[in-house]
Amino acid sequence: MKLLFSLFIFLSCFSAQSQDSDSLYFRKIYDFALTESSCYANLRVLCKTVGHRLSGSDNAEKAVLWGEKTMKELGFDTVYLQEVMVPHWVRGKESMTLKVKPSEKSGGFEDILSGVPINVTALGGSVGTDGKLEAELIEVKSWEELKSLGEAKIKGKIVFLNRPMDEKSIVTFKSYGGCVDQRAVGASEAARYGAVGVIIRSVTQADDDHPHTGALHYNDSLPKIPAAAISTQMADQISQSLTWGDRITAKLDLGCKSLKDVKSYNVIGELRGKENPNNIIVVGGHLDSWDKGEGAHDDGAGCVHSIEVLNILKKTGYQPKNTIRCVLFMNEENGVKGAKKYAEVAKADGTRHIAAIESDRGGFTPLGFSADGTSAQLEKLLSWKKLFEPYQVTQLEKGYSGVDVGKLKNGTTLLMGFIPDSQRYFDHHHADTDVFEAVHKRELELGSAAMAAMVYLIDFYGIP
Amino acid sequence: MKLLFSLFIFLSCFSAQSQDSDSLYFRKIYDFALTESSCYANLRVLCKTVGHRLSGSDNAEKAVLWGEKTMKELGFDTVYLQEVMVPHWVRGKESMTLKVKPSEKSGGFEDILSGVPINVTALGGSVGTDGKLEAELIEVKSWEELKSLGEAKIKGKIVFLNRPMDEKSIVTFKSYGGCVDQRAVGASEAARYGAVGVIIRSVTQADDDHPHTGALHYNDSLPKIPAAAISTQMADQISQSLTWGDRITAKLDLGCKSLKDVKSYNVIGELRGKENPNNIIVVGGHLDSWDKGEGAHDDGAGCVHSIEVLNILKKTGYQPKNTIRCVLFMNEENGVKGAKKYAEVAKADGTRHIAAIESDRGGFTPLGFSADGTSAQLEKLLSWKKLFEPYQVTQLEKGYSGVDVGKLKNGTTLLMGFIPDSQRYFDHHHADTDVFEAVHKRELELGSAAMAAMVYLIDFYGIP
Repeated sequence: MKLLFSLFIFLSCFSAQSQDSDSLYFRKIYDFALTESSCYANLRVLCKTVGHRLSGSDNAEKAVLWGEKTMKELGFDTVYLQEVMVPHWVRGKESMTLKVKPSEKSGGFEDILSGVPINVTALGGSVGTDGKLEAELIEVKSWEELKSLGEAKIKGKIVFLNRPMDEKSIVTFKSYGGCVDQRAVGASEAARYGAVGVIIRSVTQADDDHPHTGALHYNDSLPKIPAAAISTQMADQISQSLTWGDRITAKLDLGCKSLKDVKSYNVIGELRGKENPNNIIVVGGHLDSWDKGEGAHDDGAGCVHSIEVLNILKKTGYQPKNTIRCVLFMNEENGVKGAKKYAEVAKADGTRHIAAIESDRGGFTPLGFSADGTSAQLEKLLSWKKLFEPYQVTQLEKGYSGVDVGKLKNGTTLLMGFIPDSQRYFDHHHADTDVFEAVHKRELELGSAAMAAMVYLIDFYGIP
Repeated sequence: MKLLFSLFIFLSCFSAQSQDSDSLYFRKIYDFALTESSCYANLRVLCKTVGHRLSGSDNAEKAVLWGEKTMKELGFDTVYLQEVMVPHWVRGKESMTLKVKPSEKSGGFEDILSGVPINVTALGGSVGTDGKLEAELIEVKSWEELKSLGEAKIKGKIVFLNRPMDEKSIVTFKSYGGCVDQRAVGASEAARYGAVGVIIRSVTQADDDHPHTGALHYNDSLPKIPAAAISTQMADQISQSLTWGDRITAKLDLGCKSLKDVKSYNVIGELRGKENPNNIIVVGGHLDSWDKGEGAHDDGAGCVHSIEVLNILKKTGYQPKNTIRCVLFMNEENGVKGAKKYAEVAKADGTRHIAAIESDRGGFTPLGFSADGTSAQLEKLLSWKKLFEPYQVTQLEKGYSGVDVGKLKNGTTLLMGFIPDSQRYFDHHHADTDVFEAVHKRELELGSAAMAAMVYLIDFYGIP
């Protein structure tokens, strides 16, 4: 009994002491991140000298070089490229004009809408219009409505999918999930009833005139029709006009097309583990972006977050037990080829992946992490919750990790997603507004710090 | 035993049920706030038709009318003005130019700094320069340095107070608190050693060229010397030049002066309590602002938050037991006369103030509330923590409430401060960048919802 009691005292002290030293190291991580971090400067270079970087584009190649150079200059132990073939879709020219035939009692957007160039952008992967496509618009707000209109009303028309993002969800990713089906499968669903094209309301809560692109997925058993996005403001105007009974004809010209796959790369940097170099902890974001804005929040932020995790650990003098690996995944947006290749290699090369953390929800103020893992792993994470509280990082819960690290799912690797505040993310997502200036220095730095702190704990204490 | 057990079951069910109905009502509050709230539109009107509104100005009078009209149109039970005399300081013209005499080994900001107009703004309450004030600049980074330089080095000079806001604090208000002394007492401290003027580095973490104003407090036993702020970028340039050994003379022209006090008003709106109309729960922000930007985050956000709390409760059909009172305090920025008047009346008029919640930290994503109250009150608040968690409102802790509701402190009234994310607040605070466009619709709406939910709980369950 006495022995047990002594042991208890010993363990309590030990635990108090380790929590103490963890607290001190957390403080060191945050101090570095908020005063000496390179992540904001790195993001500026990526955004302003490379810019947007769609898979297969020249800019994507420049981004690969940027990632390699940046990590080499920071002095990581190993920096290398992992070859992968990626899709090569190009946008080409794009334009849309409308012709409004007002109804008798139309309040009249006729003058505003007719003939003027409408901000429009092809959805990623869309086929082109092969010359100008001209057809009447028909608005549809749900799949049920589409079905009930059927071929009789849909055939030969351009379907205007105008179901807005729900405003009520606190986490905007939930609203996105409940709305993005229009972009993902709208073209094929409309083609099922004979539509000749699709225009979608941009998947955003922003009230502005910027269209937001993003991937569509064709159903191979249906005709492939062109699909594009318009802004929420334009969607509201067109909807109002149609509600008044106006007839609207759209003339759509999309030059987009898919070319042959091209060679590209995941960019990988490592701090090698002193004890178990073959045990890997991954932090990553995706290097490619849509060909809009500068891919600042999506996912420049995730790239510089991940690079900075290694930089923080290195510069604060931490000696990792396991190998800490930053992976800048290529082609998350339209193929996920980089993550598939990475997972394939990881499975075959004799390494053991302990954990993988993805940052792909923007560079906003950190809230916490979601974790896709075993109960024992979750419990371990929860035992660290107190350490994060002084840094206002309070969410630690079961949930989806991310598109890229998700490919590593094998039942033992702990997969995590970094979760920042989501209120502003979809204002910028896949649009011209996703620029460096939309990222806040401190918010970005706090993200790197939270991720570095989590990686430290996983490395130092292990994960069941 | 059996009775006790039954009672236990009964109470458990009751509690589960009430938590259930609370959850449902919380959801209703948030749904309303995110889809039908008027707060964002109200803020637009305040910012764009009134603009900034320093106490005593014509705009402050317009803001009073705006507040009264807005609350009347929303149909609150009572809307009235509470008279109060406020200071009337006016800015007048302001300008600064520098003359740089480069040292031998100067890298040379000579061309950039000499003769060009420098963005400068008088600190609120400063005396004017009474014609142009011309003197050499001397940089000082701490009170110790000021003291050690002493009269020998300071006399006849303009002291340049250039201690930056600490980057390391997670909560930026903490950094602000550790830095704002330069603005508050810098003029008098410098005058103690014979300085003829003071220039301070703006109290902000923003890296830009906007000067930030704010109140100074003269020590009546020392000469009153003029004081103004320059931007952080300009502060860095001047500091670099001085570090190179350049000699810099500043020519400062400030037309500011204090006029006679003028009559103004707190604006008050109420939903009258059905059970205890003399028991009051206050929500409030301050209606005045500095004469910069549009006073959007500081504290237009707090005003529209507070108005919206009553609107949400009313429109969702809640019947308050106690009177819910929205107070738009006048003159928080340079005198706190409105809050003093309000507290004076509250003490004398036979009402009992149960609680008062202030929103004066901007319209950003809500994190929680700080509470200045008894242990029993804190405990009660903590029992509600779970209800807020689905809304990512997780902070509920002992702390400072706010400048205005703080005047109600009496040992029994629970005083609270609404706490949003603080990372971007001081980028805008007291500067031309504090405009409507800097406020995000959903972030603002979530603030109203969190405050309304808290007011509901306090009203429905009471506070010890």
